[in-house]
Amino acid sequence: MTRPFNFSAGPAALPEEVLQQAASEMLDWHGSGMGVMEMSHRGKEFISIAQQAEADLRALLAVPTSHKILFMQGGALAENAILPMNLSRAGRTDYVITGSWSQKSAKEARKYSDVHIAASNEADRHTRLPAPGSWQLSDDASYVHVCSNETIHGVEMHELPDLAALGSRAPLVIDCSSHILSRGIDWSRVGVAYGGAQKNIGPSGLTLIIVREDLLGHALPITPSAFDYRIVADNESMYNTPPTYAWYIAGLVFQWIQRQTEVTPAGPVSGLAAMEARAIAKSSLVYDFVDGSGFYFNQVARDCRSRMNIPFFLHDESLNDAFLSGAKAAGLLQLKGHKSVGGMRASIYNAMPMAGVQALVDYMKHFATTHG
Amino acid sequence: MTRPFNFSAGPAALPEEVLQQAASEMLDWHGSGMGVMEMSHRGKEFISIAQQAEADLRALLAVPTSHKILFMQGGALAENAILPMNLSRAGRTDYVITGSWSQKSAKEARKYSDVHIAASNEADRHTRLPAPGSWQLSDDASYVHVCSNETIHGVEMHELPDLAALGSRAPLVIDCSSHILSRGIDWSRVGVAYGGAQKNIGPSGLTLIIVREDLLGHALPITPSAFDYRIVADNESMYNTPPTYAWYIAGLVFQWIQRQTEVTPAGPVSGLAAMEARAIAKSSLVYDFVDGSGFYFNQVARDCRSRMNIPFFLHDESLNDAFLSGAKAAGLLQLKGHKSVGGMRASIYNAMPMAGVQALVDYMKHFATTHG
Repeated sequence: MTRPFNFSAGPAALPEEVLQQAASEMLDWHGSGMGVMEMSHRGKEFISIAQQAEADLRALLAVPTSHKILFMQGGALAENAILPMNLSRAGRTDYVITGSWSQKSAKEARKYSDVHIAASNEADRHTRLPAPGSWQLSDDASYVHVCSNETIHGVEMHELPDLAALGSRAPLVIDCSSHILSRGIDWSRVGVAYGGAQKNIGPSGLTLIIVREDLLGHALPITPSAFDYRIVADNESMYNTPPTYAWYIAGLVFQWIQRQTEVTPAGPVSGLAAMEARAIAKSSLVYDFVDGSGFYFNQVARDCRSRMNIPFFLHDESLNDAFLSGAKAAGLLQLKGHKSVGGMRASIYNAMPMAGVQALVDYMKHFATTHG
Repeated sequence: MTRPFNFSAGPAALPEEVLQQAASEMLDWHGSGMGVMEMSHRGKEFISIAQQAEADLRALLAVPTSHKILFMQGGALAENAILPMNLSRAGRTDYVITGSWSQKSAKEARKYSDVHIAASNEADRHTRLPAPGSWQLSDDASYVHVCSNETIHGVEMHELPDLAALGSRAPLVIDCSSHILSRGIDWSRVGVAYGGAQKNIGPSGLTLIIVREDLLGHALPITPSAFDYRIVADNESMYNTPPTYAWYIAGLVFQWIQRQTEVTPAGPVSGLAAMEARAIAKSSLVYDFVDGSGFYFNQVARDCRSRMNIPFFLHDESLNDAFLSGAKAAGLLQLKGHKSVGGMRASIYNAMPMAGVQALVDYMKHFATTHG
């Protein structure tokens, strides 16, 4: 079966193997006589699925025992409120603005804390990242928030800031929704990492929170119990009924990542390293072509470009509709850029094979030749 | 394929036809080249799925145009906070205690409002419902909250209270998680109906809120934007990425209900009426057998018994383990009662066929005969 290539920014394409396995287990998981959707979250079958998924994620991302993994609901947008409810102590919080998502996060946090904008790339129209050395960090912030990959503007932090070296004692919080599991995370620098699942992990409706244990237990009194990190952690993410099916699919995706291998100049790699090698190769293919094309362009500074989300534009925007309809006819779906930015966007998450990216570049080349 | 019968209280069994259709569409929904999990929630494919599901639910439950239908996240436990955030105006709220779930709701609401317990059946150990005429309603409550079916204690309101007739001007709020779509709802008496999906609707991780439009727009300032009914309604439940796959499965369940027919003494019925006729027939079969058995008993007053959740006990509790292991061997799963109540519980939601209930009663009969 040949499926089109789906460049949606999220919910996004999933590995075919994962979907096939999910379909085959839909009515009967491992001889239990139940599909996963039908299992009590407190039964031994689902608990085994849940624990395996957590262990696999912990191994893939090398999450240290100092950090708890929570499986929650609401996506990153709800988390924009849930985070300051849990961590701000109603005091000062620092936000670094690098695009639409960090802007939304800062705006929502104002309901619960005294938000200080430590840095912003708004004057650069979100096309480059403010150097950490230039950030104006507060002395007393409860945390410093960054979005480590901006899905809409296509900027990515290729190194997380070392807040201690910058003179801050605050924990770093990263919204890594749109590049989680495409690269490693330096946990020595991170207090909280959170992300909606619907880009690199699985179905929408699941949010992952990886939180350093000393940051639990400080929720504001108005925090809903179901969103209090301490309560969720103490109940192993089963204080309220978790999104069981999404958790299961996430687990299948984790196992799929574990099975992946890739040959690099430094030798064969697997798991997360294979995902990173592929992300570098796939994104380089697109950026190199765009930069050399004379027909398309990308405005993001080279050292800040996202490996996951590639916004690009045609110099002649009157050709946009023709580009998109031709792409669809060529089996390349959901390439339209976000309405706030315009142009095109190719989201090339873990599940997008190199063949899909090659097909995209081939099409872009052909379109440029016939319309240039 | 013969599957065991699954009596889980939730997440619960789904109709086989629904699971089969979901499996067959997993990699390619209607020739779109995408599975439903992989679709942008803003694309025309998913929007058509979402709108159809909403329209089907509105038709099934005869929801009037005065009420909006919201597809949210967090389940009923999160809703216990989200509801008072949206409706309490930080003032007085009335709660009627009828079991574990209404107790949890009232406890959580104390964070946001001045909770008044208008009535409680705690002295009766949640085995009968306090008559609405005896409720001590406040003059100035923002709403009156009831749980119209208590999943753990197995008590169900077979008629919703008419608050206006009781002298209250407050809107009635019903948590109907565990019996929604098993009977009609008298919307003239209801301001808000809410429920987690994982009993009668679909996968966990989806919460349905049906809210009268005049009750929107009063959220407390600390309400997360993603949980502000007004914002969710204005964005057609797509302010944040909704749980798309759960929404899709819910839609398949709605279509399945529409297709169901049942012959009753009054003639053939279909849709919701068929679900209600089956629920009456299935629950009567169990209750009648239990009452006449001398071996099992149920403590709930007859006019308050739930058609969905039937807790029952063996007079000789030392036989509990033998009962459960024999049930499992007979293909009858998840019959253990909730830990707070003990004994057994058979949850017989819409997806449980009469054949499953008959198999349960046959087993109970046989067990009583061999152990009596």
